[in-house]
Amino acid sequence: MGIGSQGKALLATDLNEYVRQAVRVVDRALDEWMPRPPEVPAQLASAMRHAVFPGGKRLRPVLTLMSCEACGGRVEDALPAACAVELIHCYSLVHDDLPAMDNADLRRGRPTVHVVFDEATAVLAGDALLTYAFELLARHVPDQDVLRESVLELAQAAGPAGMVGGQMEDWLGTGTDGATEARLQRIHELKTGALLRAAVRLGAIAARANATQRNVLDRYAESLGLAFQITDDLLDVVGDPQRLGKPVHQDEKKLSFPGVLGIEKARRRVEELVAEACRSAAALGPAAGLFQQLARYVAERNR
Amino acid sequence: MGIGSQGKALLATDLNEYVRQAVRVVDRALDEWMPRPPEVPAQLASAMRHAVFPGGKRLRPVLTLMSCEACGGRVEDALPAACAVELIHCYSLVHDDLPAMDNADLRRGRPTVHVVFDEATAVLAGDALLTYAFELLARHVPDQDVLRESVLELAQAAGPAGMVGGQMEDWLGTGTDGATEARLQRIHELKTGALLRAAVRLGAIAARANATQRNVLDRYAESLGLAFQITDDLLDVVGDPQRLGKPVHQDEKKLSFPGVLGIEKARRRVEELVAEACRSAAALGPAAGLFQQLARYVAERNR
Repeated sequence: MGIGSQGKALLATDLNEYVRQAVRVVDRALDEWMPRPPEVPAQLASAMRHAVFPGGKRLRPVLTLMSCEACGGRVEDALPAACAVELIHCYSLVHDDLPAMDNADLRRGRPTVHVVFDEATAVLAGDALLTYAFELLARHVPDQDVLRESVLELAQAAGPAGMVGGQMEDWLGTGTDGATEARLQRIHELKTGALLRAAVRLGAIAARANATQRNVLDRYAESLGLAFQITDDLLDVVGDPQRLGKPVHQDEKKLSFPGVLGIEKARRRVEELVAEACRSAAALGPAAGLFQQLARYVAERNR
Repeated sequence: MGIGSQGKALLATDLNEYVRQAVRVVDRALDEWMPRPPEVPAQLASAMRHAVFPGGKRLRPVLTLMSCEACGGRVEDALPAACAVELIHCYSLVHDDLPAMDNADLRRGRPTVHVVFDEATAVLAGDALLTYAFELLARHVPDQDVLRESVLELAQAAGPAGMVGGQMEDWLGTGTDGATEARLQRIHELKTGALLRAAVRLGAIAARANATQRNVLDRYAESLGLAFQITDDLLDVVGDPQRLGKPVHQDEKKLSFPGVLGIEKARRRVEELVAEACRSAAALGPAAGLFQQLARYVAERNR
């Protein structure tokens, strides 16, 4: 796999320590696997790296590695999929931030790709990251069945019936008055939930998990995804722009959970979802604690 | 495969008849396989279809089917790859036409996706087509080895070291004074050549062609790709906007072969390349005639 001293399990039972180890492994693999000049034009390679490094929470690849290990798989089995799901996430942020979409100048406290370079470069860097995610799978996933299942899972979750579909619905939702909780939940299941669920499922696929393990992880991922999105919406209303690294109150015209439910009810909904996620995770044996800590961490970001 | 009465070889020895049959098969498969509402948002499905139907020459999928049959494979073996390479081509046109890139209002005589819908929808429809190309492969390519090789070939050809890399170089080339024939050829090998070569290779992969067949097709594709691009550049200088379905003289600041070589020398270069392509194709046995007709057709567009 060429990721140096890997081949070891990430044994931490403390979430912070687990994340620290997982992020180091994922970042090293991304750095090694991402294309470089002269194979690719220098500006394109720079823009791709600007979108990927330094990373945010790396929530999706961490979930992929955690899920793989929870199902008895090895870190290196899930590493290509972990990197691929992160590349998809990063591409989606680059395109989301474009002037024609959210028109965001800042991301993780740094100027966005189209600000550092230009719009054309941002469009192309997003396209390149998206395409390269599939190249990375085809190049580095050793097992043929796992490869097919992984490509299918990632493409479905990221594509028109998943993340991109959710972005479309979200875009069309701007300014309409049909904002119900059900519609909002549907949008976010697609826009955010599908890729978070894919992150978990890719870990299970890499570990060749059984149906019971997959069901448990699916239920966990559904609660976690929605809790994550409501918390994101809350941060956009009550968050600290310094800590977030981006302006708040940017999405006023957009559908949001605090807008539909009110802040207090949205907070209670997050708590319920975290409790559900923790109950699902209880079936994951020794790994349960990590998954439960992760669910609580996601909810506590809005305090 | 669900493509109705297929499973038959496309037996025509006349190029027009072959293309007519192949386009019918490809269009039917694209129509059947592309996602629909309510699985995907209606506007996204419409925008994706606007980019794919009615098609242009369908040169790439026709090449995939021809190459597969020339190597002894069946049409249906190559059909998923033929559709996938066409989806990639269509996505690249949607993103290329964006205001931040070529800012083109017309394509194939019709308003472009961002004109009919809006820029955000065009970005998302392109992303969706790109992602769906890989979903389609994972869903419909039956053989595991063929799937891996196909995903790898398509992603490499379309990604940062292929088509997207070429678009980046082309974008950066605007207005520079370093326009040499070598640089131009390198840009076009990436921007246009990589995907045309992938179209041919995907057919060979689907047919499990031997190394000799693959080498012959590779050499053919290289000559054809460059002939195609020089002809495109020529059409942009001397073409009839009515016949082209788009304005001419749009790319004056861009690097182009007529700009570097002059019109007459560019035309002679096309003729040499077509002759090379025809010589390569001669090794393809009974299929040679079709490949030679196709090479001549590509060159004669600029008369």
